[in-house]
Amino acid sequence: MILYDYCRSSAAYRVRIALNLKGLAYEQVPVNLLKSEQRGEENLARNPQGLVPSLDDNGEMLNQSLTMCEYLDEAYPETLQLLPSDVLERARVRSLAQLIACDIHPVNNLRILKYLVSEFGVSDEQKTAWYQHWVQEGFVALERALADSDQTGKFCHGDDPTLADVLLVPQVFNANRFKVDMSVYPTIARIADACNELKAFADAHPDLQPGA
Amino acid sequence: MILYDYCRSSAAYRVRIALNLKGLAYEQVPVNLLKSEQRGEENLARNPQGLVPSLDDNGEMLNQSLTMCEYLDEAYPETLQLLPSDVLERARVRSLAQLIACDIHPVNNLRILKYLVSEFGVSDEQKTAWYQHWVQEGFVALERALADSDQTGKFCHGDDPTLADVLLVPQVFNANRFKVDMSVYPTIARIADACNELKAFADAHPDLQPGA
Repeated sequence: MILYDYCRSSAAYRVRIALNLKGLAYEQVPVNLLKSEQRGEENLARNPQGLVPSLDDNGEMLNQSLTMCEYLDEAYPETLQLLPSDVLERARVRSLAQLIACDIHPVNNLRILKYLVSEFGVSDEQKTAWYQHWVQEGFVALERALADSDQTGKFCHGDDPTLADVLLVPQVFNANRFKVDMSVYPTIARIADACNELKAFADAHPDLQPGA
Repeated sequence: MILYDYCRSSAAYRVRIALNLKGLAYEQVPVNLLKSEQRGEENLARNPQGLVPSLDDNGEMLNQSLTMCEYLDEAYPETLQLLPSDVLERARVRSLAQLIACDIHPVNNLRILKYLVSEFGVSDEQKTAWYQHWVQEGFVALERALADSDQTGKFCHGDDPTLADVLLVPQVFNANRFKVDMSVYPTIARIADACNELKAFADAHPDLQPGA
């Protein structure tokens, strides 16, 4: 498999974690976001949105990080499953993952921050406040959902990592980068720490990727 | 089943379409977004994010509209499947759906528009430009993905509606509301029209819901 990724893309970070958790080998090809390579023809042919990551599995090109994670689970069922087998448990894990993927991350994406600066002329302080606001809004809900459920274990769902943890760790990484106070989200922080002790998560860290 | 929804919520619009396509009966309980009922204790107990929709299936409360759609497919496999059975086809449908659910809709949500006005003081014109920009950015890619693939049929994937169409129709409804020029997205417009001829989509239209 070939993962077209970039060290600073947190969507790519997710897919690296998923591939590592499932024990699948992959080659990395960096698409440099700082040089806008994602908008070049080569990447547009892989990804009509001009985004990263894309995943090439034996000539089949996949887009959207959540899609890739679910694809890996379905195409390679013999290794660790990122989603539980029970229908209701799958729904819980998906909803935790989508809280991050749909309601936190997209609003704080680099292209959004750039628009705020170029079109509305927001200051650095305003940009940071925007970033923190949407993380906090999401994390308050996520903390409650995790802390209130007896299905939460060492990880977001039970004692094995799932798709929810795959999404959680890059979002916590971003929150720390933007100096969000994590002490008010003790369950989220505890789970992120537990994840980062695993090699699959540690090896996917942005600082360890090509081009970092 | 009980769907906690609101006529103006496009995430709820998706779930109404999915329930109708699957032929599942449900009761609707409106949560009035204009009165901020979604942030009230009653709704927070159902939905820790203080959002709509939530779906109660026999006492089990589900959140996140995409999660609900996938849950309905897995819990009620005997009716029309929103996802194909082939693993790669499932990935295509999911990635089309997530292009909308992750990369267009969240950025144009009511709470985001409110923040732009209250914190950055953007004008009505700037707000509309913001809205149109992110729809156009997403629709350019979606149009290409649909027009370039021989897997696109009468609907987004083949000749039966799938999860991708469930997401497409509410997004096109929003685009029209914000006067996005749809003539440059002929494939998207054609598919949305085909969907809206089906009773499952027509019955889910915001104007026909309680409280509209």
